[in-house]
Amino acid sequence: MRKIDVNVDMGESFGRYTLGNDEELMKYISSANVATCFHAGDPLVMEQTIKWAKQYDVAVGAHIGLPDKQGFGRRQMDLTAEELRADTLFQIAAIDGVAKTYGIKLQHVKPHGILYRMVSEYEQYIDPFLQAIKDYNPELFIMLPPNTPAFERGKEMGLRMVGEALIDLSYDEDGNWVIERTKKARSPQDVAERAVSVATQKKIATVKGDLIDIDACTVCIHGDAPNAVEEAAVVKKVLEENGVEIANLFKIL
Amino acid sequence: MRKIDVNVDMGESFGRYTLGNDEELMKYISSANVATCFHAGDPLVMEQTIKWAKQYDVAVGAHIGLPDKQGFGRRQMDLTAEELRADTLFQIAAIDGVAKTYGIKLQHVKPHGILYRMVSEYEQYIDPFLQAIKDYNPELFIMLPPNTPAFERGKEMGLRMVGEALIDLSYDEDGNWVIERTKKARSPQDVAERAVSVATQKKIATVKGDLIDIDACTVCIHGDAPNAVEEAAVVKKVLEENGVEIANLFKIL
Amino acid sequence: MRKIDVNVDMGESFGRYTLGNDEELMKYISSANVATCFHAGDPLVMEQTIKWAKQYDVAVGAHIGLPDKQGFGRRQMDLTAEELRADTLFQIAAIDGVAKTYGIKLQHVKPHGILYRMVSEYEQYIDPFLQAIKDYNPELFIMLPPNTPAFERGKEMGLRMVGEALIDLSYDEDGNWVIERTKKARSPQDVAERAVSVATQKKIATVKGDLIDIDACTVCIHGDAPNAVEEAAVVKKVLEENGVEIANLFKIL
Amino acid sequence: MRKIDVNVDMGESFGRYTLGNDEELMKYISSANVATCFHAGDPLVMEQTIKWAKQYDVAVGAHIGLPDKQGFGRRQMDLTAEELRADTLFQIAAIDGVAKTYGIKLQHVKPHGILYRMVSEYEQYIDPFLQAIKDYNPELFIMLPPNTPAFERGKEMGLRMVGEALIDLSYDEDGNWVIERTKKARSPQDVAERAVSVATQKKIATVKGDLIDIDACTVCIHGDAPNAVEEAAVVKKVLEENGVEIANLFKIL
Repeated sequence: MRKIDVNVDMGESFGRYTLGNDEELMKYISSANVATCFHAGDPLVMEQTIKWAKQYDVAVGAHIGLPDKQGFGRRQMDLTAEELRADTLFQIAAIDGVAKTYGIKLQHVKPHGILYRMVSEYEQYIDPFLQAIKDYNPELFIMLPPNTPAFERGKEMGLRMVGEALIDLSYDEDGNWVIERTKKARSPQDVAERAVSVATQKKIATVKGDLIDIDACTVCIHGDAPNAVEEAAVVKKVLEENGVEIANLFKIL
Repeated sequence: MRKIDVNVDMGESFGRYTLGNDEELMKYISSANVATCFHAGDPLVMEQTIKWAKQYDVAVGAHIGLPDKQGFGRRQMDLTAEELRADTLFQIAAIDGVAKTYGIKLQHVKPHGILYRMVSEYEQYIDPFLQAIKDYNPELFIMLPPNTPAFERGKEMGLRMVGEALIDLSYDEDGNWVIERTKKARSPQDVAERAVSVATQKKIATVKGDLIDIDACTVCIHGDAPNAVEEAAVVKKVLEENGVEIANLFKIL
Repeated sequence: MRKIDVNVDMGESFGRYTLGNDEELMKYISSANVATCFHAGDPLVMEQTIKWAKQYDVAVGAHIGLPDKQGFGRRQMDLTAEELRADTLFQIAAIDGVAKTYGIKLQHVKPHGILYRMVSEYEQYIDPFLQAIKDYNPELFIMLPPNTPAFERGKEMGLRMVGEALIDLSYDEDGNWVIERTKKARSPQDVAERAVSVATQKKIATVKGDLIDIDACTVCIHGDAPNAVEEAAVVKKVLEENGVEIANLFKIL
Repeated sequence: MRKIDVNVDMGESFGRYTLGNDEELMKYISSANVATCFHAGDPLVMEQTIKWAKQYDVAVGAHIGLPDKQGFGRRQMDLTAEELRADTLFQIAAIDGVAKTYGIKLQHVKPHGILYRMVSEYEQYIDPFLQAIKDYNPELFIMLPPNTPAFERGKEMGLRMVGEALIDLSYDEDGNWVIERTKKARSPQDVAERAVSVATQKKIATVKGDLIDIDACTVCIHGDAPNAVEEAAVVKKVLEENGVEIANLFKIL
């Protein structure tokens, strides 16, 4: 049976501010990208999210971001390479240790927002980011867009790169995705069909309707979309109808 | 030969703001309480401090604080017990993981500023604080004032409590110390004599000049005192002259 | 015709985090307490809220808070009197100047969350708070609970004290209200009847059902209640049915 | 007699972190660029700096920055134009109101760090920045590098543009200056001679030693240089020896 990982960004609430319906989402997915309190989240939210992940048997990843809650990690900041390395180590360490306290082994690292692009494509950040993870724990999976310079570089370094498809965002013909400042609702059926297309054909549709290659074994649903729970439920249902099992990275790779 | 641990608060610089002469201080001490980026510090400063600790063979502890850089962790905040637990886990995990990256085993936890008093004496915080450490890693040493409720409670829970004397602060007759908003310089010779008195007699002088009991095997020098380096150098010299060796907790206990 | 001011906390959204339905609420009320970016809000949110207030002819006040977004200004912090003064001046000045840019005269100051209690009742903060406002602009109205030490002190100092009733929170027999960490929905009809009782009888019901005196000419609805818009609409309707006009403080006093 | 304004960045201390010797510097200069608590400073520091400015008869300006204390406003952040406008209004309003409380009329606005470059040269930020100041108070002086797009645009908009020379930084042949992450000490005599050259010839030396034109009526000394007080004292002495009086912008323009 075919398998694919479904990951969602979680733990993005902050104090009085609630974002996403994390507990509900846990029921439909295999991996949680848990915010590490830089771009979003706080320690209490992070701990609660980890407890839910354990309860619903969802794998936990470090969703690391830029130190800018006001901008939700979506405003590019010109960190030095040394700052990027230190911020990466700090955030992975924090969530790894809290997860261990609950008997959970950290599965993966995924950069959030504009950091996803910065460490995938910007020459000055690729090596510091990858080297920080290698130094911390080379067994961690690293979710990045396939066919980016960082993805190739990571494989050369012997790291466990995991290609990701962003099934609720749009891609252009060149395989670039578009970040939305505030996540809009998208047809759950449409998102689910994109998941199936990635899982069964390794392809995703562009804004023009063409299919382009995408070598991904995980697909992302953004937890802050207004209809994220419905999207996740439909994705799960449609994947299973198409003979695809949702399973986390430890089980797939 | 008698032994005592000498600990200093470090890693309190923040971005452009420099506080303390951490590298110099490393030459004279056995334990560094490294700020975990809540009350002070940032990830780059934390990583650098850990690298210095390795270079100078100084043991590393988590100097955890309240989430208030503007108040430097010295303004009491009414956290809930759950917030205190989550903040404690997060900070210990962050520094533990970064230290491991450099091959260093975290030695101890020490609360900073007003948190030192809150978790030592305030009923609502004692158990959440101690339980968080027990859940994280019960092997960690915990530096607290001896003869406080938390110190006794920690021993009952089987934790590795380490009594601390604050040799550069003043004590009243009841064994209470006085926090200074901005650390003032103090005679290095006076500080050193207080260290010897703790190490050899388990006693410290009060503001009135009486000696009171203090069951401490570590003494603290505040790194943000203007003459901290000189204090540390004189403390080391005078302790050795009095037949006391400076050694970290792993070696003493 | 009887008149009463209806005020709502607004401008509490922060970056990606939305809180309250501010534009909708503007249609039913006379005064907006706009967050000044310490406990909540950011400059963009503040500016937008001021623009809506102008559009809907709602008076603008400074809703000042403790510098703690994670705690939403609800965790007491032991500021010094000097810090409280400086924080008060800074926040009032910021919103006053932005409001002026849009041709709006700042109407009032209202402290948020635990600061509301701190400056009403805690001896060390009453004078610094009132004196800061007097120094800044003694014409500003100051919303506080009547019958608190600060209310009396303000009148002695010649300041324009405005008694407030919290119609969507509970009062005990002694006239104390209960802060809720996360605002719960309350029956709009019940809230509206409490508004009428304040406006027409200067009385409010306690949790036991007794009526106690409350000399208030403004009533507060918390904008972060899940049903705040409905509450505000019903309050307006029921007040008008009872012959009470909603009018801001400039028109009433 | 020739006149020139000498401005220094001040009010950059933050809580426990002290930066610069502001009170001493006040004795030698005519304008203080006071940090508005985004890139540096806090409300207590800002108020104290304003009180010193009053005491020493130094004009006060808003030294506005990016919302990034950890990066000291030196890491470029991709704000939207709307965010830049709102941040600009907020910061100017805050300091203007606090200054008024002490009877001081705000003299000027100067952007700090990388924001200085962003609003001088980046097309998307020039108009939002200038328009925000025009909307707030078109009488404010605006310190920017002459011969930048923003300088010209501001003059077209009828704003009071003031050319500035950075006498303690280096210029290349094209008139670009180099930001230093941590300000280094520079020979006070050298800095003073550059001040004289600007004041008397409207010229400044490049790193190659050539003189280039600079139409400036204010010169800047960075207050966080380790020898800033000495620099300021020597600049004042040497300017006066060369027949140039130090005077603020109200007196010159």
